[in-house]
Amino acid sequence: MRLYQDSRAPNPRRVRMFLAEKGLLDRCELVDVSINAGAHREPDFLEKHPLGLVPVLELADGRRLRESVAICRYVEEAFPDHGPPLLGTEPWQRAQIEQWNRHAELEVLVPVAQVFRNSHPFWEGRIRQAPEFAEIMREQLAARLAWLDRELADRRWRAGDALSIADLTLLCAIDFGKVAQLRLGDDTPHLGRWYAALRERPSYRA
Amino acid sequence: MRLYQDSRAPNPRRVRMFLAEKGLLDRCELVDVSINAGAHREPDFLEKHPLGLVPVLELADGRRLRESVAICRYVEEAFPDHGPPLLGTEPWQRAQIEQWNRHAELEVLVPVAQVFRNSHPFWEGRIRQAPEFAEIMREQLAARLAWLDRELADRRWRAGDALSIADLTLLCAIDFGKVAQLRLGDDTPHLGRWYAALRERPSYRA
Repeated sequence: MRLYQDSRAPNPRRVRMFLAEKGLLDRCELVDVSINAGAHREPDFLEKHPLGLVPVLELADGRRLRESVAICRYVEEAFPDHGPPLLGTEPWQRAQIEQWNRHAELEVLVPVAQVFRNSHPFWEGRIRQAPEFAEIMREQLAARLAWLDRELADRRWRAGDALSIADLTLLCAIDFGKVAQLRLGDDTPHLGRWYAALRERPSYRA
Repeated sequence: MRLYQDSRAPNPRRVRMFLAEKGLLDRCELVDVSINAGAHREPDFLEKHPLGLVPVLELADGRRLRESVAICRYVEEAFPDHGPPLLGTEPWQRAQIEQWNRHAELEVLVPVAQVFRNSHPFWEGRIRQAPEFAEIMREQLAARLAWLDRELADRRWRAGDALSIADLTLLCAIDFGKVAQLRLGDDTPHLGRWYAALRERPSYRA
């Protein structure tokens, strides 16, 4: 397998962490597509993903798959004997994991990306920006983190007793949040404890 | 089962269509939560979903599940003998369906919702709006629809030969797009043919 990716972007990172937790990272060739250098906009990569987004998974036979969660699900189902299940095993648990993964994506990762795109100097002159929308998302993010903190008070991981994709997504979203001045502080103690536990895992550096 | 929902909102609609395609809609009690009347912000509903979003699925034993795709996946896995699989059956096909469902969500449904929230009179005075961001999303939507049209040239449904959740999500996103002046025209013939086929299905009116 080959993963087209950018080491600094949050979506490739959550796929690398997923592969690392599965013990499959060394089965995957990482091919850098530097967003900073504009490689995601080159014809060569646009042929792999017409929207110029990373990551893209490429199988040995040339088939390609876009979208981080689709890639993770494919890896989980195509390699059932590798590593722990990160998408759950029975219907209710699987639904809970999907729910929390979507909350991490839609309530944290997407808003962080919008703050980044709409207010960060990195994108000035590259895309049209709407700084006012960045402000709206920044306000919303603070409220969402407070909620996610409360919801973590009575359990170890995001979706229950077992580590899941929902933890990896939220971790990558929070770390990427530095571009949006988002940082965990004393007001989110449960997220702080959860983050410290994830930071100890080898997958953190994947 | 009970589904807390708003008949006019796109996310409840895709769950109703999913249930209808499965032949399970009449097994589900629909409970209206009117966004227009502000019912999603009442303490009674916030206890069911702290973010005030619809839909929420409630099981007979009181367990609750948020997020449309999590609800659909739970229904598919908890009722495997009801209706055709809408999330696929083998890993590669399932990954393709998830990829196209996410494209429909992230490239059409979410941007349409952002145009609606940031520029529509319905939200004036209810939330802080960023009209400039609505404009950015409107431009992007036109480009995305052109791409989705080309990608539909050589197959019947969004993710291949079989109807899937990806079709339902895109249909609901496009219909909801009316609030963003998004309409299918002569420049997207493949989407037009695909839309006409979906409109003939009983689930269209679910």
